[in-house]
Amino acid sequence: MTEVIDQLAVIGRLLRAENVLIVSHKNPDGDTLGSAGALLHALKGLGKQAAVLCADPIPARYDYMNLELFEGQFHPGFVVAVDVASQQLFGDAISAYTHRVDLCIDHHGSNTGYADELYLKPEASATCEIMYELLTAMNVEITAQIAECIYTGLSTDTGCFLFSNTTASAHRVAADLMEAGARVQDLNTILFENKSRARMAIELVALQNLEYHFDGRCALIYLTRQQIAASGVAANELEDITSLPRKIEGVEVGITLRQLPGASYKISIRTTEGVDACAIARRFGGGGHGRAAGCELEGNLENAKAAILAEVEKALTRIHGAQES
Amino acid sequence: MTEVIDQLAVIGRLLRAENVLIVSHKNPDGDTLGSAGALLHALKGLGKQAAVLCADPIPARYDYMNLELFEGQFHPGFVVAVDVASQQLFGDAISAYTHRVDLCIDHHGSNTGYADELYLKPEASATCEIMYELLTAMNVEITAQIAECIYTGLSTDTGCFLFSNTTASAHRVAADLMEAGARVQDLNTILFENKSRARMAIELVALQNLEYHFDGRCALIYLTRQQIAASGVAANELEDITSLPRKIEGVEVGITLRQLPGASYKISIRTTEGVDACAIARRFGGGGHGRAAGCELEGNLENAKAAILAEVEKALTRIHGAQES
Repeated sequence: MTEVIDQLAVIGRLLRAENVLIVSHKNPDGDTLGSAGALLHALKGLGKQAAVLCADPIPARYDYMNLELFEGQFHPGFVVAVDVASQQLFGDAISAYTHRVDLCIDHHGSNTGYADELYLKPEASATCEIMYELLTAMNVEITAQIAECIYTGLSTDTGCFLFSNTTASAHRVAADLMEAGARVQDLNTILFENKSRARMAIELVALQNLEYHFDGRCALIYLTRQQIAASGVAANELEDITSLPRKIEGVEVGITLRQLPGASYKISIRTTEGVDACAIARRFGGGGHGRAAGCELEGNLENAKAAILAEVEKALTRIHGAQES
Repeated sequence: MTEVIDQLAVIGRLLRAENVLIVSHKNPDGDTLGSAGALLHALKGLGKQAAVLCADPIPARYDYMNLELFEGQFHPGFVVAVDVASQQLFGDAISAYTHRVDLCIDHHGSNTGYADELYLKPEASATCEIMYELLTAMNVEITAQIAECIYTGLSTDTGCFLFSNTTASAHRVAADLMEAGARVQDLNTILFENKSRARMAIELVALQNLEYHFDGRCALIYLTRQQIAASGVAANELEDITSLPRKIEGVEVGITLRQLPGASYKISIRTTEGVDACAIARRFGGGGHGRAAGCELEGNLENAKAAILAEVEKALTRIHGAQES
């Protein structure tokens, strides 16, 4: 089992570490890469060898972080995972390096405790917020480069300070980062205002396929394999389309069905307070959080829709009573 | 001409004022109403009579601010305008009260100086940010109610801390407001995640009508009068659709054409750095800012499109040279 350690112990480990391999999770997002970048630049500033390892390619939009990737240039003496909740999230391609992780720094309450030592702050809005406090406590100079890495994770994990995990502390750190030289305006454009033409095309399809059910309390969109392929949209660009149906006025349950290569449907469930998304997902062997959960359903579109809508109706009936038909 | 006064003088005016009429601009947004609400609740907390006046109805989503509207319940002794850049923005319906404004509190650099006295901070991200500093300097207790009013203007004017006017100070104020009890999560849902079904319908039309020009450097959407009417979308819900085309990867000029009742087209121009939106708008008698401007074009859709695209092409050619056809 992992040993949970405090900030002072983490600082001790990092200051003593040499040849540090910093590992991000697969399908990397802004928080895992921003945390890795901030730690990378901090350690290099302290004169240490360090590099970042990730099972998947780093999307080009993060180029400004100047992540130095691990390509065997040193023999790792200390392995630190950032923002990685479980060992499965590393990806098989890099298991040679992740079979033994010395330290994990994370904000996921669901962290499985796979690392020798764990520094976990589930109340932090992002792992990058933890990283900022850590580097500040280490007296590392927050350069503009480090500030931009941290801002990346802080802003992407909070949906630019919109999501419910946004804390007062997240806002204060953002203010500090701006004063440290992070070009927040440029980053916001890169991170939040650059939709590909393929993404626009799939949004059109999603809106064409938008359906309302149960007096508008449920909105549903679906995307077939063929529609996804025709748009040319990348998988990571599809993720946040699942938040679209729930944003509509009056909608308590937003459902997104995406057809998977194996012909089953991946179902994403987003709910307002009061409707337990996870309970719905669990009926089909899925899981997640109270307001965001998912599951997979075999069969064709009509069957998958009918099955999930039946469970949504039960959940809404429990709250509002049976509807007039 | 107006006299520009400092914070100390403003505090003196407000503390001495009785029967205060607080005036917002027409087509009210979160910043003018949030500023008005914060000042209203602060003055009432000081035992004064006060009420808010606006030429247009207050949208229901702002109900949580508990704005007390002026309905003749006292004879105004002091008139203060908040977030109103020019006298025209009051609206004719309330000109009996706005022919003489004692004090204007504003963050618009373009403020025309119509009030007897002006407290202007163009560097502030929102008038609500000025209001927070002011009330704090007055030793007013920032109640949860006041904090929610201020958060409303701060978040809406910055697009939830996304736009280029977002300052470090805006983030710090947001942190203070959360600690003062503002239910930021609920407000974010109300302000940013509640799209009407009509708005979804018009977004579908906009995406169906999306065109790319000049190697994808220009994206254009248009909405006819008939399409707007068929969707049932309210005018204020259409405003931010103009930001849609510019958000697409590679797009330097985003154009939105909306047909007006008189059959002319209202053109909104949004640009990335390097393309002067205002210069394009001025060619047709319009105006605005460097990256957001607008104008009106007579004629049918084809004529309006051809005219604006010709000017966009000239602007892009000045930057990139002539395109291969």
